[in-house]
Amino acid sequence: MTLTTRRLFGPGPTNVYPEATAGLAAPLLGHLDPAFIRLMDETCVMLREVWQTQNPRTLPLSATGSAGMEAAFVNTVEEGDVVVVAVNGLFGERMCEVARRNGAEVVRVEHEWGEPVDPERVAAAHPSPKVIAAVHAETSTGVRSDIAALGELKGEALLVVDAVTSIGGIELRADEWGVDIGYAGTQKCLGVPPGLAPFTISERAFARRVETPRSWYLDLGLLGGYVGGATGAQRTYHHTAPTAMVASLHAGLRRILDEGLPAVWERHARAGRRLQEGLQELGLELFAAEGYRLPELTTVRVPDGVDSTAVRAELLERYDIEIGAGVGPYAGSVWRIGLMGPNADDSSVTLVLGALRDVLGR
Amino acid sequence: MTLTTRRLFGPGPTNVYPEATAGLAAPLLGHLDPAFIRLMDETCVMLREVWQTQNPRTLPLSATGSAGMEAAFVNTVEEGDVVVVAVNGLFGERMCEVARRNGAEVVRVEHEWGEPVDPERVAAAHPSPKVIAAVHAETSTGVRSDIAALGELKGEALLVVDAVTSIGGIELRADEWGVDIGYAGTQKCLGVPPGLAPFTISERAFARRVETPRSWYLDLGLLGGYVGGATGAQRTYHHTAPTAMVASLHAGLRRILDEGLPAVWERHARAGRRLQEGLQELGLELFAAEGYRLPELTTVRVPDGVDSTAVRAELLERYDIEIGAGVGPYAGSVWRIGLMGPNADDSSVTLVLGALRDVLGR
Repeated sequence: MTLTTRRLFGPGPTNVYPEATAGLAAPLLGHLDPAFIRLMDETCVMLREVWQTQNPRTLPLSATGSAGMEAAFVNTVEEGDVVVVAVNGLFGERMCEVARRNGAEVVRVEHEWGEPVDPERVAAAHPSPKVIAAVHAETSTGVRSDIAALGELKGEALLVVDAVTSIGGIELRADEWGVDIGYAGTQKCLGVPPGLAPFTISERAFARRVETPRSWYLDLGLLGGYVGGATGAQRTYHHTAPTAMVASLHAGLRRILDEGLPAVWERHARAGRRLQEGLQELGLELFAAEGYRLPELTTVRVPDGVDSTAVRAELLERYDIEIGAGVGPYAGSVWRIGLMGPNADDSSVTLVLGALRDVLGR
Repeated sequence: MTLTTRRLFGPGPTNVYPEATAGLAAPLLGHLDPAFIRLMDETCVMLREVWQTQNPRTLPLSATGSAGMEAAFVNTVEEGDVVVVAVNGLFGERMCEVARRNGAEVVRVEHEWGEPVDPERVAAAHPSPKVIAAVHAETSTGVRSDIAALGELKGEALLVVDAVTSIGGIELRADEWGVDIGYAGTQKCLGVPPGLAPFTISERAFARRVETPRSWYLDLGLLGGYVGGATGAQRTYHHTAPTAMVASLHAGLRRILDEGLPAVWERHARAGRRLQEGLQELGLELFAAEGYRLPELTTVRVPDGVDSTAVRAELLERYDIEIGAGVGPYAGSVWRIGLMGPNADDSSVTLVLGALRDVLGR
């Protein structure tokens, strides 16, 4: 079979760190091998670092980021519990659906797509919710919201945060900001293939969890034992860990922490700034509200008269470059350009801007 | 970091086909890339072949085999539905737990561990169950059960089958045997790393599924769109496919089908037969009932006076060989030796028998 090398400048997955590929291809370990148990322990410890948390229950769930969202709600929501969801894009929308399926009475707090979450309005939406949920970096719109402000206003509620597109790319401080449950994905700024959901839960939230959630696979009470050592729990068999993916995540995290988290954030910030300046120099208009733009994922309006799909197809066919379409109401009118993980560099900025200039004839 | 090369002769994961490693390490594709969509389509078509089914809804779920079990029950069981479960080992036990969490009234049909399922007794356990569930190849005991006989007796019930340890290793004919829902894992006889759950559901079962299951992530109504083409459904975004793992599965399946499914079954049969003969020549006693022994996973009693854990540790440290302990009541008194995927060969048989002879001093 012929292989294809793409430059993945869409909303994720991104191209991965070479260490992450080496981790995948390393000789496979059994999930009970002492060498794997060490690898898993170290992975959990490094995950705490990228989450900026001391939570002992910080681990990679054995499924993609969307399963992280499901784990957040299935472990906290019982029939009739009130869940306030800040909706400013597709993933806030999905949170409503997942919470509802778990029996929640969902209180939606609507925002314009492209705008950040308004913490005051979210906090005022209900006097005593069990959960307040928001997306830190909305992948559908390229917007960053202020999680620290939500944490200050959360009161007794548990704060659930979607960090799929923020982790490893922009400042994220789970403990300092009062995040009770956070979930993420590996395939964005962590620079690892998709397939795992880095997850963290505070002791406070763990104590208030659903005793026997509907989901056995995502039951955090059982999963503490699955990862064993790092969580402080006695190690017990739950399911077969996806050992190749965990080895890949381990290698990607090592690379990130060797560079240093602030340096990695700064690299993403610089690449995003250069891209956004360059797009505006091409006469293009950014979509996300100024002041709240994610550096790792830039949304830009498709110019009038330009066929969005044709441009993406030409980028893919002539340049092997993938960029993303918009989502929902903006499917045809917005592009999403990601510079994540190893792609947060000058070379990627220059390439994607140059190719866009060519294709748009600007 | 120093890497370790193990011979994985436990109950899984097994060492993987070299093609599966190459698939993992290939340049990553985005989940919406036409090249990936083709890869996913081909993967689904090849999965139908290893399941021996025409079901259009045959796909790799984006989580491990245990999530396949969860998907089977969350999509079929509503509060109070009767589920008859044949329990002859750990995984039948787990089926009861997962069905119960999904609201089922579970009717357990107990069997001795080490014995196969008795189809007559299972079929007679309840006059009109919604679901009858059984494990084809019990990983905890090394026993094969007769699924075809259950299929003949199922009546109106949906037949759910755990094929985690059988798929790609022994004869499995989903359509001919009347399997309505089957789930499996990639890390056993398919010779691919753990992380995906090959899944199939008949049109009959799909028509009787739960309309809006509690789980959004495992909702088969949505997942038809996720895989798109091969299922006949319109392709829609659901979650980010674990593209590296799907590429690996694609490569592993291609390898198996190039060899030919009957040849692969025969290779597993031959390796298992040689191992079981060799173990008996060493004076060891097999655990699983004669006539129902899996070739890909052999259970053997730990001889009196032998420290089970010490033997496993010595195999691991001196020979880099992993074999499995027993499970539950047999944790210390049984070993489990797997010869799966690429390890179903003469070389592996000779190595594991030789090492055991050394360590046991026989």
